[in-house]
Amino acid sequence: MTDFRRAAATLDAADPLAAWRDAFVLRDGLVYLDGNSLGALPKVTAARVADTLTRAWGDGLISSWVDADWIGAPRRIGDKIAALLGAVPGEVIAVDSTSVNIFKALTAALSLRPDRDVILTETGNFPTDLYMMQGLARLTGVRVIAVAPEALLDSVDASVAAVLLTQVHYKTGAVHDMAALTGAIQAQGALAIWDLSHSAGAIDVDLNHARADFAVGCGYKFLNGGPGAPGYLFAAARHHHAAPALSGWFGHARPFAFEDDYDAAPGIDRFQCGTPPIIGLAALEVGVDLMAQVDPAARRAKAGALADLFIAAMASLCGDDGFALVSPRDPARRGSHVSFAHPQGYAMMQALKARDVIGDFRAPDIMRFGLTPLYLRFADVVTAVETLADICRTRAWDRPEYRIRAAVT
Amino acid sequence: MTDFRRAAATLDAADPLAAWRDAFVLRDGLVYLDGNSLGALPKVTAARVADTLTRAWGDGLISSWVDADWIGAPRRIGDKIAALLGAVPGEVIAVDSTSVNIFKALTAALSLRPDRDVILTETGNFPTDLYMMQGLARLTGVRVIAVAPEALLDSVDASVAAVLLTQVHYKTGAVHDMAALTGAIQAQGALAIWDLSHSAGAIDVDLNHARADFAVGCGYKFLNGGPGAPGYLFAAARHHHAAPALSGWFGHARPFAFEDDYDAAPGIDRFQCGTPPIIGLAALEVGVDLMAQVDPAARRAKAGALADLFIAAMASLCGDDGFALVSPRDPARRGSHVSFAHPQGYAMMQALKARDVIGDFRAPDIMRFGLTPLYLRFADVVTAVETLADICRTRAWDRPEYRIRAAVT
Repeated sequence: MTDFRRAAATLDAADPLAAWRDAFVLRDGLVYLDGNSLGALPKVTAARVADTLTRAWGDGLISSWVDADWIGAPRRIGDKIAALLGAVPGEVIAVDSTSVNIFKALTAALSLRPDRDVILTETGNFPTDLYMMQGLARLTGVRVIAVAPEALLDSVDASVAAVLLTQVHYKTGAVHDMAALTGAIQAQGALAIWDLSHSAGAIDVDLNHARADFAVGCGYKFLNGGPGAPGYLFAAARHHHAAPALSGWFGHARPFAFEDDYDAAPGIDRFQCGTPPIIGLAALEVGVDLMAQVDPAARRAKAGALADLFIAAMASLCGDDGFALVSPRDPARRGSHVSFAHPQGYAMMQALKARDVIGDFRAPDIMRFGLTPLYLRFADVVTAVETLADICRTRAWDRPEYRIRAAVT
Repeated sequence: MTDFRRAAATLDAADPLAAWRDAFVLRDGLVYLDGNSLGALPKVTAARVADTLTRAWGDGLISSWVDADWIGAPRRIGDKIAALLGAVPGEVIAVDSTSVNIFKALTAALSLRPDRDVILTETGNFPTDLYMMQGLARLTGVRVIAVAPEALLDSVDASVAAVLLTQVHYKTGAVHDMAALTGAIQAQGALAIWDLSHSAGAIDVDLNHARADFAVGCGYKFLNGGPGAPGYLFAAARHHHAAPALSGWFGHARPFAFEDDYDAAPGIDRFQCGTPPIIGLAALEVGVDLMAQVDPAARRAKAGALADLFIAAMASLCGDDGFALVSPRDPARRGSHVSFAHPQGYAMMQALKARDVIGDFRAPDIMRFGLTPLYLRFADVVTAVETLADICRTRAWDRPEYRIRAAVT
């Protein structure tokens, strides 16, 4: 047994979260390091969704909007997500995609700063954040400015209505200091919008402590809500008079009065839009309920320890193979994934996949490994790095079929 | 046996669609006349969704984006919906809510008519159509004009970029002449956007014959896709260079290149936005597949005959009870629901519900009965009207608890 195997065995034996793995469907032999892209399936999800289908939809039919509280699902699940994010009940709604929620947050922020015409972000932000800003700019004439991260704060001036930032970088896992940046942004009169897609369920988030203005996030990553799960939107209670532009009937104060004129609901409900996606919300609620039971301190500690072990094992076992760590070494500045750059990263990730070690690749050269503390074992980390070391030693990555890039990786 | 019972028995015995009822979960004794609000559960949906959960998500995990063709789901299901609507493959995408798709269609239309600043509709259109237009107007300065239906065509002038109309009115069931109105709208240089929420699966729709520009619709009504199912969007192939403002990463030409600048996908894919809702799409696909197997002529004929019987039975059995038919008498001008106005409509609908006859109520006084040819029997129509007649005769509606209006009806 190697030193890393021994260390992993010791860590697994002492892991207070070890029992959580059994709450997920994960087949034997699989090392799944992509929970930051698509979280694993909780074992109870299938039964919960089946109940929504057969009992609520099949038997209850239209009555289930009230009797099964479908009408309350976006608020109910939003409240549970709020508890994970340092927000209070009534500040979060779970509905629509993250992208659509970005548009709501941006337009709500603009409605609060009608005398400002710039929305600011950083280059290299997750593409859909950038793209949604660009679409809004083309539509309205608002200007999008994207600057290098180090130039961000110098670019916040009296023209800037809102700054959209992602707290945990999707490639590097680097964590922004939400409280400090929010304060600096607000000091210039601008509003801070945070994308929490790689944060929620991964690191400690305290939106109200940071006095964040708006936030959005993803349900299918660390929240284990399923492929394309509904996202969520946070609006600080002080901003509930804002006007998101996507004013659908579920955001109306009286949706079932069928009035001709829009009258925004009080509170977070005005951030709803169309009819909520009940089946997807049923699956999401399982993942959120499960995360709500996990001790955040233990989750955070294990995420850090998994990554520390990964980085140490990479240095020791793959130290001469040309990998460059692109994630911060300091656990306090790192999300729940670690990434390495390598010129053969794509082919290597395919070779890992062929050996049942699943991570993902982000162009141009980033190998990304999600380290989900709920269902990953320290032994899995060692298996992953040992497998990669063997792939390097045997040049197993050097096959033509591993260079054919799939549409989705 | 009454004359209506005998007539219904004859019609049911000769009904070429009678066997379809067995494809749905409908408990004995229930007369479900709300399939235009939430369609019934197809029996195979639970198994299909379970397969998506356990095999594709649980076992396949991230690989299912390719291996289970999740990535292709919006296009694949869109193509199937296109076949129901007189569109061709590549003109329809199934994703997001109807409301969000309305916003995409409106902004795409505006991008094609940059020199025009009015979006036009009719008063009494379905609220979310009106509300989404109003939200867009507040955001952009575009003007929304809503005029009475009879004044519509006179209001289309050189300032109008697009006209948004619902083909089948949600209250009355009255059908607009899509081809004639589209032609008249286009003659003024404007674009025609059609909301097909109460059309698809209910009446004959032929988008390309009518030369419609854009259309949107709902997956959870006659398409039986489940509560809050994804909606869909049609963009005529000649408009695939348009720019919908909701430009999320799934609408990018190369979403997995993670570029900073948006470059819209060619074709209908640019009308995608965020990550598609895979679980909801799995349920929707079952409903669409099922509808695709139904002979449209038989469907249309049965829908008309169900409504004719309903109207005749109402005239005969409830003729003195103060009901006013608000739907057209001519089957060719009527969708697949019939509505009656009555001052006590709300309480009566509650009394019907207590006897397992489920319709719905639309303020201020409309009793609405969805007549879904796939799973409704002619005998059910007679049961519904006989029950209502008995409720009138016994004044069973006159109870305090039937006057308490629920949040959703």
